[in-house]
Amino acid sequence: MYFSSDNASPAADEIMSAVLEQNTGHAKSYGADEPMQQVREYIRELFEAPAAEVFLVLSGTAANALSLACLCPPWSAVYCHELAHAEQDECGAPEFYTGGCKLVLVGGAHGKIDPEELRQKISNTGVLGVHNVQRGAITLTNVTETGTCYTPAEVAGLMDIAKSFGLRCHMDGARFANALAHLGCTPAELSWRSGIDVLSLGGAKNGLLGVEAVILFDPSLSWEFELRRKRGGHLASKHRYLSAQMKRYLEGGLWLDLASRANIRADQLARGLDALFPDPLLHPVQANMVFASLTRDRHRRALECGAEYYLWPHTQSLDGDPDELVSARLVCSWSTSEEEIVRFLDTVS
Amino acid sequence: MYFSSDNASPAADEIMSAVLEQNTGHAKSYGADEPMQQVREYIRELFEAPAAEVFLVLSGTAANALSLACLCPPWSAVYCHELAHAEQDECGAPEFYTGGCKLVLVGGAHGKIDPEELRQKISNTGVLGVHNVQRGAITLTNVTETGTCYTPAEVAGLMDIAKSFGLRCHMDGARFANALAHLGCTPAELSWRSGIDVLSLGGAKNGLLGVEAVILFDPSLSWEFELRRKRGGHLASKHRYLSAQMKRYLEGGLWLDLASRANIRADQLARGLDALFPDPLLHPVQANMVFASLTRDRHRRALECGAEYYLWPHTQSLDGDPDELVSARLVCSWSTSEEEIVRFLDTVS
Amino acid sequence: MYFSSDNASPAADEIMSAVLEQNTGHAKSYGADEPMQQVREYIRELFEAPAAEVFLVLSGTAANALSLACLCPPWSAVYCHELAHAEQDECGAPEFYTGGCKLVLVGGAHGKIDPEELRQKISNTGVLGVHNVQRGAITLTNVTETGTCYTPAEVAGLMDIAKSFGLRCHMDGARFANALAHLGCTPAELSWRSGIDVLSLGGAKNGLLGVEAVILFDPSLSWEFELRRKRGGHLASKHRYLSAQMKRYLEGGLWLDLASRANIRADQLARGLDALFPDPLLHPVQANMVFASLTRDRHRRALECGAEYYLWPHTQSLDGDPDELVSARLVCSWSTSEEEIVRFLDTVS
Amino acid sequence: MYFSSDNASPAADEIMSAVLEQNTGHAKSYGADEPMQQVREYIRELFEAPAAEVFLVLSGTAANALSLACLCPPWSAVYCHELAHAEQDECGAPEFYTGGCKLVLVGGAHGKIDPEELRQKISNTGVLGVHNVQRGAITLTNVTETGTCYTPAEVAGLMDIAKSFGLRCHMDGARFANALAHLGCTPAELSWRSGIDVLSLGGAKNGLLGVEAVILFDPSLSWEFELRRKRGGHLASKHRYLSAQMKRYLEGGLWLDLASRANIRADQLARGLDALFPDPLLHPVQANMVFASLTRDRHRRALECGAEYYLWPHTQSLDGDPDELVSARLVCSWSTSEEEIVRFLDTVS
Repeated sequence: MYFSSDNASPAADEIMSAVLEQNTGHAKSYGADEPMQQVREYIRELFEAPAAEVFLVLSGTAANALSLACLCPPWSAVYCHELAHAEQDECGAPEFYTGGCKLVLVGGAHGKIDPEELRQKISNTGVLGVHNVQRGAITLTNVTETGTCYTPAEVAGLMDIAKSFGLRCHMDGARFANALAHLGCTPAELSWRSGIDVLSLGGAKNGLLGVEAVILFDPSLSWEFELRRKRGGHLASKHRYLSAQMKRYLEGGLWLDLASRANIRADQLARGLDALFPDPLLHPVQANMVFASLTRDRHRRALECGAEYYLWPHTQSLDGDPDELVSARLVCSWSTSEEEIVRFLDTVS
Repeated sequence: MYFSSDNASPAADEIMSAVLEQNTGHAKSYGADEPMQQVREYIRELFEAPAAEVFLVLSGTAANALSLACLCPPWSAVYCHELAHAEQDECGAPEFYTGGCKLVLVGGAHGKIDPEELRQKISNTGVLGVHNVQRGAITLTNVTETGTCYTPAEVAGLMDIAKSFGLRCHMDGARFANALAHLGCTPAELSWRSGIDVLSLGGAKNGLLGVEAVILFDPSLSWEFELRRKRGGHLASKHRYLSAQMKRYLEGGLWLDLASRANIRADQLARGLDALFPDPLLHPVQANMVFASLTRDRHRRALECGAEYYLWPHTQSLDGDPDELVSARLVCSWSTSEEEIVRFLDTVS
Repeated sequence: MYFSSDNASPAADEIMSAVLEQNTGHAKSYGADEPMQQVREYIRELFEAPAAEVFLVLSGTAANALSLACLCPPWSAVYCHELAHAEQDECGAPEFYTGGCKLVLVGGAHGKIDPEELRQKISNTGVLGVHNVQRGAITLTNVTETGTCYTPAEVAGLMDIAKSFGLRCHMDGARFANALAHLGCTPAELSWRSGIDVLSLGGAKNGLLGVEAVILFDPSLSWEFELRRKRGGHLASKHRYLSAQMKRYLEGGLWLDLASRANIRADQLARGLDALFPDPLLHPVQANMVFASLTRDRHRRALECGAEYYLWPHTQSLDGDPDELVSARLVCSWSTSEEEIVRFLDTVS
Repeated sequence: MYFSSDNASPAADEIMSAVLEQNTGHAKSYGADEPMQQVREYIRELFEAPAAEVFLVLSGTAANALSLACLCPPWSAVYCHELAHAEQDECGAPEFYTGGCKLVLVGGAHGKIDPEELRQKISNTGVLGVHNVQRGAITLTNVTETGTCYTPAEVAGLMDIAKSFGLRCHMDGARFANALAHLGCTPAELSWRSGIDVLSLGGAKNGLLGVEAVILFDPSLSWEFELRRKRGGHLASKHRYLSAQMKRYLEGGLWLDLASRANIRADQLARGLDALFPDPLLHPVQANMVFASLTRDRHRRALECGAEYYLWPHTQSLDGDPDELVSARLVCSWSTSEEEIVRFLDTVS
C-alpha cells in the first residue's frame, strides 16, 4: 500500500534489461552514443516533429529550470500556477538557472491556470517599462499537481493568450505519459500543436531509473541549451545509460502502457473511495493521483496497517478530532497492484 | 584499442548486478534510501572520518562546482592548475555555481601546482582591499590532468600554503582511486590528513554507470551543500540507483581493484612505448593515462588500424610532415585488455 | 502643480552649497574622505547606535538590493508587501543581487504587511526541507507605498514575528524622514529598537541630488556589504560629493525640516480634497503622498491646467465615463508650495 | 604634489556651475530630462554616429561590467590585458554582471594587448565544443593602465582579429579624452571606425563629480542595456544632475581641454625626471600617467615633503636598501599645477 510518490517505484523490467544490454564495450560519451540517435528519431516520429531537438537530463528540476533559462532572460516574469512544481518544489532552481527571474503566480481551480487571471497578470507586467521585470515565459504542468489533465484545447487556449503577448511556452510534463494515456490524444496535439515550445518529458516517475527528456520544438534553442546543460553539470559522461532507458521507454508504446497501468489503479482507488464515502474527492481523478478527504480516524488506521502516503497539504496533522476530515494525496505508479488498492479500500472502509 | 577516455568504458559487472538487486519494490526517494546509509558508513570508515558527510551527484562537473560554491563566496579567487578540469572542461560551471568567482591559474610541471607560484598568486590577491576579488579556495586534481599523482606530502605542502592564508581546500578526485592504487597510501592520508576539506570522489571513470560522491570532511557545510545540490537539479529522485553503485564500488575494495587494472594497463603501455622509442613519454605515468609523442606516420597507422585516442593538445593535427613527432593522450580503463595494449604496440612499432 | 514624484524635485539650496564647499583641492577617494567620517558620526549619534556602520550608494534600488543580499543566501524567501518597491519597481534587482531569491508577497491594508498573513507565509516556507526555498529575510517599507506610516509598535510587532522564525529584517526607508516627521518618534525607535537590522535611509526624494545611506546596525555585515557594493559598481570614486550631501542633510535637522514641509503640503492637499468631495481619500494621509479618487472630468481639467501626476494604478485611463471616479497618486516634496496646493484645489473643485 | 590618482581631483568649475544651473524647478526623472537629450545629440555629433545610443552611469566599474554583460552570454570568454581594470580593480564586477564569464588574460608590452597572443588565445577557446567556455567579447583600455595609448591603427588591428572570430568589442575609455588629446585623432577614429561596438566614456577622472557615459554604437543593444542598468541599481532618479555634468563636459571641447591640461603636466613631469635620472621611465608617457623608478631614498624624501602617490606595483615597499630603485605611479589631473611639478622635481633631484 505504497502511495507516497511515483518516484519511489522501481524501474520497469524492460528498462532494466535495456540498460543491461547497453553494457558492452566502449561507447561514445556525452551524448554521442548510438541509442541517443534512436531516442532522437523516436521522439521526432512520435511527436511528428522532424526538426525537434532532444536532450536528456537526470532530474525534472534540471529539465524545467534549463528549459526556462533558454526561454527568457534574467529580468523576466515567468507565469506559473501557484501550485507548480517549479514554484513549490525546486528550491528556487528556476531562479538560479535563469539568473534571477521572478515567478508570477496564477491561481485556478484543480491546479489549472485560470485564463482570465493569466491574461490579467501578463497584461499588468512591465507597464512601467524599465522599472519592472518584463514579460518572459509561461510554464504549465500536465498532468497538473492536483492530478488533473489539461486537454489540448485548454493548453491551446492558454498558449494563445501567452503568444498574444509574445511569450514562449514551456510544459512540465513530468507525468506527460499519464496525461496522454488519459486524454487519448497524440503527443503532438498535447505539445507543439497546442503552442508548446519546450517540453520536459518525464521518465523517472513512470518506470525509468532516472532520466527526463527535454524536447525543443524550436531547434534554434539547441546550442544554448547544450551549453547551459554542460555548465549546470547535467551532461552525463556515460550517457548511453540514459539513452538506453529513454529509447526502450518509447519503444512499442511502453511509456503509455506504464502510464495506463498507473492511471487505472488511481481510477480504481477513486471509484472505491467514492463508493464508500460522500464526496471524498477534492479533484477530478484524471491520471495517477487521488486527492481525497478521510477522517483522521481512518487515516490513522490506514497508516497503522502499513499504508504510506502524505497528508496534503503538509501543514495538516493527524492530531485532533478523529472524526474530522483531513485531505491526503495518494499516488499510484506503474507498479501499484490491484491487490494494494483493494486492501487499502478495505482498511479505510 | 580504445584509449579515448575512461568514461567511454562500460560499467563493471559487479556494479550492474548491484543496480539490478536494488530494483525491487518501493524505496524512499531523494537520498533517504537504505543503500545510501551504507555508502555513508563505508566512506566514514574507509576515510577514518566518522563525522564526514557524503552526497551523491551525477557528474564530476557538478561535484566540483557544488563543492567550490560551498567553500567560497562569489567575489573569490579560486586557485587551480592552468590545466585543471574545472578551468578547461566544465564550460564555466565553477563560475556559474559560485555566482561568478574568478579562477586564478597557477602553472607547474606535469600538471602539479607549483608551490612557490601558488604562494605568490595567493599573496598578490586582494592587496587593494575592496577593489579586488578576495582569497577564496584552492582546488587541485589528483590524479592530475597529465596522469601524475600528488603524494600526500605534496598535497600537504600545498594545503599548508593555502591554510596559511585561510583558504579552504577542494580536491577533484575524478580518478582518486587510481591515485590511491598508485601511491599505496590510505584514503585519509590523501585527503583530510593532508588538509583537504572537500573531496569529489569519482566513480564514472572507474566502472560505475555514472555517480560521483562529494565528501565533506567539515560537516558544517552539509546543509548548504544539500540546498545547492537541490537548487542545481542534482538531487536524484530515484536515488537508490546511485547509492547502489557507490555502495558496491566501495565494498571489498572493488574501487581499488578496478583502478589497479587500469593503472597496470597504462604501465604496460608506457613501458612498451619506452622500449620502442627514444624518450616518448611527456609525463611520468603514475595512473591510467599515458601522454606520448609518436610520429604522424605512426599515429596514422594506429588510427587506421582502429585505435581510438586524441592528439593532445587538441590543436595538433595529423596533417603535416609524417616524420614529425606529435603528442597524444592514451587513457586506459578497468576494462582495457592486455591484448589491446599488445596490439597497439605492435601497430605503432 | 507638480505631483508626479518627489524625485523630480530639485535639490535643496543647503545641499547644493554643501556640495560646492567640498569642491576644493584633492580628497581621498572611495569613501575615505573627511565628510564621510562625519556622516558616520552623525548617524551613530542620531540613531543612538555607536557601532552602526554606514555606506552611501547612489540609488534606492541599490540600497535595497545590496542590503537584502547581505541578509540572506540565494535560496531564500524574502517576505515583502505585494506593493513593495522591491517587488514592483526594481526590475528584479533583489533577485539579481541575492543570486536568485524568491520574493514572497504578503497582503495587508494601506500598504502595511498583515501580521497574520506574514506569520502564515513564513510558517509555510520550507516545510518540505531541501525541496523548498528557505526562510530568508523580511523587508518592509516605511513610509509605505500608499503613503501610510508604520508606528514603532507596528514595526516591532512584525519584527517579532520575523525574529521568532530567525529572520533578519530590512527597512526600505526611501521616505524614512517623512515617517519620522509624521510619527514624532526617534530614529532609533523606528529602526533598531523595533528590530530592524539594516535600514536604507533615503535622500534623493527629500532634497539631495541623489544619495542613499545604508545603515548596518549589525556591523558584522560590513565587509560583505563593502565587497558587494564594489562588485555591483556602487562604490563612487569621487565619494566626497556623496558624503557632502548626506552630511549636510543630517546637520541641524535639515532632513526632518525638508520632510515636514512635504508632509504639511500633503496634509493641506488631503484636507482640501476632503472638504470638497465625499470620501475622496483611499488611504490615510500620513506623509507626503495623497491617493485620491476624482471624476475623470476633474482629472482632465487638472491636467489641462498644467497639473502633473499619475493615475494610480497605472492601468487606469482617462478614456471613459467623465463622471466615473478614477484614482490618482499626488506626491508632494519639500519644494511644493502652498500656492500649488491652492491652485490645484481650485482647479478640481 | 598630489599624484595618487586623477579621481581625487576636484570637479572643474564649469561642471559645478552646470550642475547648479540645473537646480531649478522640477525635471523629469530617470533620464527623461532635457539635458540628457543634449548629451545624446552632442555624442552623436562628436562621434559622427547618428544612431548611437547613450546612457549615463555613476562608476566606471558599472559602465564596463554592464557593457560586457550586453556583449556576451554567461558562458563566454572575455579577452583582456592582464593588467586591465576589469580584471584587477573591479572585485569581479564583470563576472557578476555577465552571470559568470571567464576573463582570459592576454599579455603585451606597455599595457597593450599583444596581437599574436590574442589571436592564439581566441583560437584556442572552445575547441572542445560544449565542454569549454565560448568565445565571447574583447575589452581593451585606452589610455591603458600603464599610461600608453593605442593608436586607431592599433585598435583596428586588434579588432580585426576579434571580428574575424565573431567577437564584439568594448573599450574601457575611463581616460578616453586623454587618449584623444594625445593622439589628435577624432572620437570616431578611435572608437567605431576602429571596430569598437561599445565605449565606456569616462568623466570622473577628468573633471566631473562622477558620471560615465556608455555609448552603444550598435543601438540594438539599447533595451537590454537599459534593463540591466535598472536591475543593477544604476538608473539615477534625479538624472538631470548627471546629464548636466556630461553635457557641459562635451560643450566647447571642455573634455579635451581638461585632458590636455593633465597630459601636459605628465609630459612636464616625465621630461623633468628624464633630465634628472638615467632612464627613469618604465613606459612611454602618452597621457596623464608617469611610471618611473627612483631610489627609495628619493621616494622617502618626496613623501616626507608632502608628495602623495603609490609605489607601483603595490607589493613594493620603502623598507630596504635606500639606493635601490623602486617604481611608482604618478598621475596628473586637469587640476595639477605646473608649480606642483616643479616642486616635485626639485624635491627628488
